[in-house]
Amino acid sequence: MIGDISAPTRDDIEQARGRITGHVRRTPVLDVASGTFGLGRPLTLKLELLQVTGSFKPRGAFNRMLTAGVGSAGVVAASGGNFGLAVGHAARELGHRAEIFVPSSSPASKIEKVQGTDADVRVIDGYYDDASAQAATRRDETGAVWMHPFDQPEVVAGQGTIGAELSEQVAGADTVLVAVGGGGLIGGIASWFAGTDVRVIGVEPETSRCLQAALYAREPVDVPVSGRAADSLGARRVGDIAFGIASAGHVADVVLVNDEAILEAQKALWRELRIFAEPGGAAALAAMRTGAYVPASDERVVVLVCGANGDADDVVR
Amino acid sequence: MIGDISAPTRDDIEQARGRITGHVRRTPVLDVASGTFGLGRPLTLKLELLQVTGSFKPRGAFNRMLTAGVGSAGVVAASGGNFGLAVGHAARELGHRAEIFVPSSSPASKIEKVQGTDADVRVIDGYYDDASAQAATRRDETGAVWMHPFDQPEVVAGQGTIGAELSEQVAGADTVLVAVGGGGLIGGIASWFAGTDVRVIGVEPETSRCLQAALYAREPVDVPVSGRAADSLGARRVGDIAFGIASAGHVADVVLVNDEAILEAQKALWRELRIFAEPGGAAALAAMRTGAYVPASDERVVVLVCGANGDADDVVR
Repeated sequence: MIGDISAPTRDDIEQARGRITGHVRRTPVLDVASGTFGLGRPLTLKLELLQVTGSFKPRGAFNRMLTAGVGSAGVVAASGGNFGLAVGHAARELGHRAEIFVPSSSPASKIEKVQGTDADVRVIDGYYDDASAQAATRRDETGAVWMHPFDQPEVVAGQGTIGAELSEQVAGADTVLVAVGGGGLIGGIASWFAGTDVRVIGVEPETSRCLQAALYAREPVDVPVSGRAADSLGARRVGDIAFGIASAGHVADVVLVNDEAILEAQKALWRELRIFAEPGGAAALAAMRTGAYVPASDERVVVLVCGANGDADDVVR
Repeated sequence: MIGDISAPTRDDIEQARGRITGHVRRTPVLDVASGTFGLGRPLTLKLELLQVTGSFKPRGAFNRMLTAGVGSAGVVAASGGNFGLAVGHAARELGHRAEIFVPSSSPASKIEKVQGTDADVRVIDGYYDDASAQAATRRDETGAVWMHPFDQPEVVAGQGTIGAELSEQVAGADTVLVAVGGGGLIGGIASWFAGTDVRVIGVEPETSRCLQAALYAREPVDVPVSGRAADSLGARRVGDIAFGIASAGHVADVVLVNDEAILEAQKALWRELRIFAEPGGAAALAAMRTGAYVPASDERVVVLVCGANGDADDVVR
């Protein structure tokens, strides 16, 4: 813990890394020259979309399962997206039962991927909160270990292992741009870089800005959620852990991008690299392309590309 | 030179690397666990498809241009594919004129990409040999520097820089699987690893096997060319440089893959990593998945994924 917030320490993150090594990939970085993506500066991409299951989520899911003492009742989670897929994958790898409550509002392609794991998948009519309520009831019945998509210390520490990798892979980074959903990812990375010269910048869609709203309100508050990246970044309220980390000053700024900029960033990644990023995965790059974030001329910027699950039809031509 | 063949030495390749640094990307490697791509073993991918212009070809093109003393007549090449695109790109970056003769048989998408550079592109009715003949005539008229897609020492040395990167990126590699067109790529990589314990294996489509045919005949011979990967791997005759390197024992084996295996390897890369490789770019992975190449149980295998330009429609769903 850093101070009185339940943020992971560097030691927590290093321990998480030791636990999950062999279960997750060390994702590569790619330096691209000025001119790439239409930007007038070089950039480093951390290609976390190449992670197992196509997003960063298994880092936290494995770390949580490997520390929580999972018994015969297994684990239970609510998610119709990348976290559900990560929980299903990690449970299969570790030999645990998993029940995953999926809201019917999730994209069909993501629900199918969750169903493709060995988890018991229950599709619940409604939205995330409906699925989450039923998952909690089930947890109380069975005693299964609860897996939260972003607001558990072990989950945040797991996502923070991206920061630890970046410290090894990128010499002299000044800034890391990170997309924000419920804050597990940015919370982990900001915890890793807390007290260093590396600044962590959050990027939220204009239509789902729970971290920015919380920082304005000085406490987590509910926000409306919609838009192209809602299925991965559309948390209605930021996690307490991430809020604590951000409000303690470990997130230097939060910037916003709109749906059109996200789509254009997806297209730019496809055009230049032939990789498909989902909307949430391309949001951080969008912030560079629109000028939502403007670095100093000599600033060395790392952009995290964090997810690849989604419908490619309107991007890949 | 190694012995009496015009293979690049390690020093030639290191010098090439110094020249082209800043113009090309150091492409990342990705370790994937057993189970990935349906394989019962871990694997390392060298993601050269993330190179500028979407293939390895700029390495050789830049090295050739930076050593050949290009004058006001510029450079001339024949290619309707990745090499043409690389020559157009490198010429623009270095401020040279470029004339590129493109056979009308090339895929429209590749011709368009070559036309998207600043090069003077001339589409010639017919096949590669027709375009090449006209390009040679033009070279004789103008005195432009000739750029050969695979059979020039500077081109081979440039492609060999992939080997130099692999030596830094992958500790303890035993084997590198490399797709073969005219042999510039495998010639460069095999030259780098000549005299080491690292074995270089060539992968050819069953329908364009110029290196295997040359090794059987003990000299470069013409072969028929067709199939899914013909636009990148379909050289009618292997280069003399690559033949010299391979017949000197620096290519440990040549294995074959068919079109269906190539398509399935493309689909596997898309499904597991959300990256698009063109047919030639996926051929080396195909050899692992079909068992065309069977490593020993503890053998550490690197698979080179070398190109991303092509029609994604039948792969990306």
